Amino acid sequence: MAGNSIGQIFRLTTFGESHGAAIGGVVDGCPAGLTFDFELVRAEMQRRRPGQSRIVTQRKESDEVEFLSGIFEGKTTGAPIGFIIRNTDARSSDYDVFRDIYRPSHADFTYEKRYGLRDHRGGGRSSARETACRVVGGAIAKMFLKQQGITVQAWVCQVGNIVLKTDYSRMNLSLAETNAVRCPDPVVAAEMIQLIEQTRKNGDTVGGIIASVATGIPAGLGEPVFDRLNADIGKAMLSINAVKGFELGSGFGAASMFGSAHNDAFVPGQHSGDIETSSNNSGGIQGGISNGQDIYFRVAFKPVATIIQKQMTVTRQGKPVEMMGRGRHDPCVVPRAVPVVEAMSALTIADHLLRFRAARA
Amino acid sequence: MAGNSIGQIFRLTTFGESHGAAIGGVVDGCPAGLTFDFELVRAEMQRRRPGQSRIVTQRKESDEVEFLSGIFEGKTTGAPIGFIIRNTDARSSDYDVFRDIYRPSHADFTYEKRYGLRDHRGGGRSSARETACRVVGGAIAKMFLKQQGITVQAWVCQVGNIVLKTDYSRMNLSLAETNAVRCPDPVVAAEMIQLIEQTRKNGDTVGGIIASVATGIPAGLGEPVFDRLNADIGKAMLSINAVKGFELGSGFGAASMFGSAHNDAFVPGQHSGDIETSSNNSGGIQGGISNGQDIYFRVAFKPVATIIQKQMTVTRQGKPVEMMGRGRHDPCVVPRAVPVVEAMSALTIADHLLRFRAARA
Amino acid sequence: MAGNSIGQIFRLTTFGESHGAAIGGVVDGCPAGLTFDFELVRAEMQRRRPGQSRIVTQRKESDEVEFLSGIFEGKTTGAPIGFIIRNTDARSSDYDVFRDIYRPSHADFTYEKRYGLRDHRGGGRSSARETACRVVGGAIAKMFLKQQGITVQAWVCQVGNIVLKTDYSRMNLSLAETNAVRCPDPVVAAEMIQLIEQTRKNGDTVGGIIASVATGIPAGLGEPVFDRLNADIGKAMLSINAVKGFELGSGFGAASMFGSAHNDAFVPGQHSGDIETSSNNSGGIQGGISNGQDIYFRVAFKPVATIIQKQMTVTRQGKPVEMMGRGRHDPCVVPRAVPVVEAMSALTIADHLLRFRAARA
Amino acid sequence: MAGNSIGQIFRLTTFGESHGAAIGGVVDGCPAGLTFDFELVRAEMQRRRPGQSRIVTQRKESDEVEFLSGIFEGKTTGAPIGFIIRNTDARSSDYDVFRDIYRPSHADFTYEKRYGLRDHRGGGRSSARETACRVVGGAIAKMFLKQQGITVQAWVCQVGNIVLKTDYSRMNLSLAETNAVRCPDPVVAAEMIQLIEQTRKNGDTVGGIIASVATGIPAGLGEPVFDRLNADIGKAMLSINAVKGFELGSGFGAASMFGSAHNDAFVPGQHSGDIETSSNNSGGIQGGISNGQDIYFRVAFKPVATIIQKQMTVTRQGKPVEMMGRGRHDPCVVPRAVPVVEAMSALTIADHLLRFRAARA
Repeated sequence: MAGNSIGQIFRLTTFGESHGAAIGGVVDGCPAGLTFDFELVRAEMQRRRPGQSRIVTQRKESDEVEFLSGIFEGKTTGAPIGFIIRNTDARSSDYDVFRDIYRPSHADFTYEKRYGLRDHRGGGRSSARETACRVVGGAIAKMFLKQQGITVQAWVCQVGNIVLKTDYSRMNLSLAETNAVRCPDPVVAAEMIQLIEQTRKNGDTVGGIIASVATGIPAGLGEPVFDRLNADIGKAMLSINAVKGFELGSGFGAASMFGSAHNDAFVPGQHSGDIETSSNNSGGIQGGISNGQDIYFRVAFKPVATIIQKQMTVTRQGKPVEMMGRGRHDPCVVPRAVPVVEAMSALTIADHLLRFRAARA
Repeated sequence: MAGNSIGQIFRLTTFGESHGAAIGGVVDGCPAGLTFDFELVRAEMQRRRPGQSRIVTQRKESDEVEFLSGIFEGKTTGAPIGFIIRNTDARSSDYDVFRDIYRPSHADFTYEKRYGLRDHRGGGRSSARETACRVVGGAIAKMFLKQQGITVQAWVCQVGNIVLKTDYSRMNLSLAETNAVRCPDPVVAAEMIQLIEQTRKNGDTVGGIIASVATGIPAGLGEPVFDRLNADIGKAMLSINAVKGFELGSGFGAASMFGSAHNDAFVPGQHSGDIETSSNNSGGIQGGISNGQDIYFRVAFKPVATIIQKQMTVTRQGKPVEMMGRGRHDPCVVPRAVPVVEAMSALTIADHLLRFRAARA
Repeated sequence: MAGNSIGQIFRLTTFGESHGAAIGGVVDGCPAGLTFDFELVRAEMQRRRPGQSRIVTQRKESDEVEFLSGIFEGKTTGAPIGFIIRNTDARSSDYDVFRDIYRPSHADFTYEKRYGLRDHRGGGRSSARETACRVVGGAIAKMFLKQQGITVQAWVCQVGNIVLKTDYSRMNLSLAETNAVRCPDPVVAAEMIQLIEQTRKNGDTVGGIIASVATGIPAGLGEPVFDRLNADIGKAMLSINAVKGFELGSGFGAASMFGSAHNDAFVPGQHSGDIETSSNNSGGIQGGISNGQDIYFRVAFKPVATIIQKQMTVTRQGKPVEMMGRGRHDPCVVPRAVPVVEAMSALTIADHLLRFRAARA
Repeated sequence: MAGNSIGQIFRLTTFGESHGAAIGGVVDGCPAGLTFDFELVRAEMQRRRPGQSRIVTQRKESDEVEFLSGIFEGKTTGAPIGFIIRNTDARSSDYDVFRDIYRPSHADFTYEKRYGLRDHRGGGRSSARETACRVVGGAIAKMFLKQQGITVQAWVCQVGNIVLKTDYSRMNLSLAETNAVRCPDPVVAAEMIQLIEQTRKNGDTVGGIIASVATGIPAGLGEPVFDRLNADIGKAMLSINAVKGFELGSGFGAASMFGSAHNDAFVPGQHSGDIETSSNNSGGIQGGISNGQDIYFRVAFKPVATIIQKQMTVTRQGKPVEMMGRGRHDPCVVPRAVPVVEAMSALTIADHLLRFRAARA
């Protein structure tokens, strides 16, 4: 209820502030008997970690995950999987200057309004460090999805005004992991990297868009009405720091389309009895339920709020004051957000896979 | 869990198919002691009802709401508020032809994959008739919000390629209710109406966008991390039939912005001690929590799937077949979706208002 | 959250006051494809209805259930099943005298403290009439359980100081339905009936105990730790009006036993590979999870609070006043509570059957 | 959903096996601004820990709680409070012999049926070590209750056939903490201790009953219908290892009472305007809602299943085999369960205190 859990059956609960002793989480409802892939967890954490390239924050964070429960002789037991990640590079003093002022477009002001007090060190609970726990939870969800023949992949398709225009079906998505910005087109990737580097030199930050596709999804996942698969995926994405928008399939473009062009015709599939669609404006979900086609969506991120420029703001008493951003922050959040988008996607799909099991007598 | 409820404390559960005996719902968690405004319910239902103008479906529906419980001597008692709306104009036979084929971009195929069977009459549970119950629930939420000084308003800002470009703060939003398409700019509204009429003549349908603003929101609503106010509003919107996208504040536009331009500077407010922001790219929510500014978001709708044109599809056995749309459908869903967007917005904000009460010792 | 729903997957929500327009409910999460047994619903309602014998209240209530959704061509569709039962014999004026006083051991005082106001007619939401909706929900759960080979049965084993001492395994439980008090031993039943009649003549009421057994339960139902099967069954029972205690298997008697006598030895079962226990002090649940043996428990009911005798109480202003009970009430609640106990048991087991499906990869 | 969380607003999630790396938990929804009392946590853990006296298990466990988040400058921040307790004295090899057999009245068999596999070391998740996390969560709940003027206290009132008969209102309950068995009557306590010691010498175990009272509860806590305060307290108690029964106020004794004797008359209270009851058969809860009187209930515990005697059981293949209990176990669980009962009581009441805040407009 207090909002630190997500999922109904496959459920992740997280805790921890960026400058406390540790962050961590609990995955409850992971089915028993799954071979636990520690290497996958490590690899996913590497994709998210600070310092992985020149275009991301050089902050040092421990990303070593310690699993405390729920795994026995290499398999999940059905018991909750608890884990922690110690905080090590906590330069709290960097933040002392922010104790009494509200950084623009950060959560300082709103947390204080909600709770009456605030842990000002590094944003406390609002820090993007919290997403590390999502990546751990998502890796566990991916283990389950892999067993079910499902893959989840995300990539960067826009940074500032640099836009990847090629349809994803005509690209080799695995190339996304071969460059620092995680864009599958090397030429566009180079432009994006250049823009991010220039932005950093300017002491500024820039926004971007991440696209994501899930393949191998069986038809029938998602609850009608409120817990539609798209609604739950959308919520999962909108719960990520800095996300401002979500669109499925045709998305906002659907607003200017006619039904005759937008409808996805059903056609016989490759195998006898299969039914497919000849286009996928639906993004793989119709009436809130997966139709067996790729689930395709896009997530918009705002530029990071911390800029290394002078800005006006106010103190806790409401007095105008000039401030200067501090700390080591990402000039653009999207490269490191790619595994977070995948994690939230995997968690949501895993949950609905389990919910599906209760649909029929 | 089966997805027919939304909200944690202020909670709406709905039931009913378009061609069954009735649709209805239960509002649980409405605070006791609220004066019940039956006239508001009636007015909201009028805004949603078919046949209200030339540009919407001419289907006849009963929209008479019968309240069964939870109200005593004109006030809410804290007990669940049950209500039903009888179905009267249920021309099931219109749908006999669809018993064995899957209409393109409808939920026929996916429901059958989920449940192993399907109520083919009018889409059953996937019918937009279900949104009538959301409007009832939303009206009750609005009674509570009004008491708290909060207003929620939505309007149409795009139909096909006709776009309302004026910033909402420079318009008289109450004009939206003076025309059939619910756009506050009369000139743009006329163009939209013309496009919808032409589209209907073509036997086609067209998409659109609805914008929404909530005012009077106190700072501090929303849970950090997963149940962010924007995530819950986004989910509520994405749970509405035909919605393909959601964006808050700067939305997808944020992707091409720099942080120096995007940040909302805090400034002293009009009253001593008040703190406001000089811009509102945040859309009134920072770190998942309301900051006291207007909550502003936009929702994209696809064109309605039922078109009165020949289309190819497949039978339940996967054989190609030509079909023709039937029934009386909206050529564009957005005019009648405006009160639905408001309802889902009101329900979500009411829920978070109550959740806020538990945040401090 | 406001407490009018029970169950995680198979979920019943109820609404309605005894003297409002109707009571009703929604069963969400009932699996699709179940043949709907309307006759079972009618039969269960008959078992609960007032006026069925001399020893129960002679109040007249409509018990006609109207199903509004979720059933198509005789089968459940997976959509929520909405239903209502109209209130017809609502003699609200009987209760005018209670508008300003608190009846002893009723919920008048506590509801007013909770909500700041109160629907004084017949106890409003606190009326036992609410249990009619539980019986409807329970009948639907029983349809699912029957398909799974599970039966649920309850009977009266104590009224006042008349105690049925025979172990249930040595009785023909079907005899319970052959007498007005629902005790499977005809001799003991006669004594119980006599006690209830004498109690009614005295203008008094008397308590009792109901026992219940569920057979055919597969091993493996129940979540460890907080949502143990016994904890969820216990909560379901304690949520019934007038229940003061719950015990599983050996129950309170276990307190005076030694482990060497209490342990249930595992033994080979009748069929190859089966494992049974030679005794059942566990009541069919070990570590919160069913072990395949009968689930056996007992539920204690207090005497009904309304007595036709003079009692002292206070007004809403706290002034002492003498009052006299009114209305047509049960002299002993247990005969009519038998189907309610079964309903709550069936709902809980159905829910855990569905939860079980998510336990393994 | 997987049952490792309890509470709606004030919510505890636990994880960890007795022989894994650590156990731990997350308290979500604890209000912000509460002064955190580390000493109280330590004291409560002392009351629960093994080895505290001769009559409890001599197993050595680490009970050092490390708090990882949610506390800043000595106060709760509203963020989730994560904590872990390392496992240190994990003699897994003690349990190797149990890998292929099912210990009678343990959870070995049922866990394996549920999950298809089992962590056989010390019962894994079913170990009573899990209750340490409940005590931590309960201590945090007590901090909140104390601020609200509420106290929660439990004591042992029966061990085997040694029964404490004095009404609690006529005893000095603080004496319970002055002896090893936690019974407030020193004479009865001595008899209980003697019985437990003799039982241990016999290699046997014995059951018992714990009584509990909560004082200072405001009238109005609890949701009507399913989430009655007594139903939620009952579920919390029935979720504790080895609990077989729960009764509120008059409890099972109510079954043999008449209404004229059972009803609690309302009377003017000590302070002007106060309303009290002259007796408390209701146990402080009427219609599921607290009435301001003491909340009084009793919880029955079975004898611990591990006995140091030869017993017959079966292997995983269903073959009969003789086994001998191992490990260091409690001869009677109730002395160490007293703080666990208090913890679960405190958690439930804290949750309902917060839920109460949403009841009125």
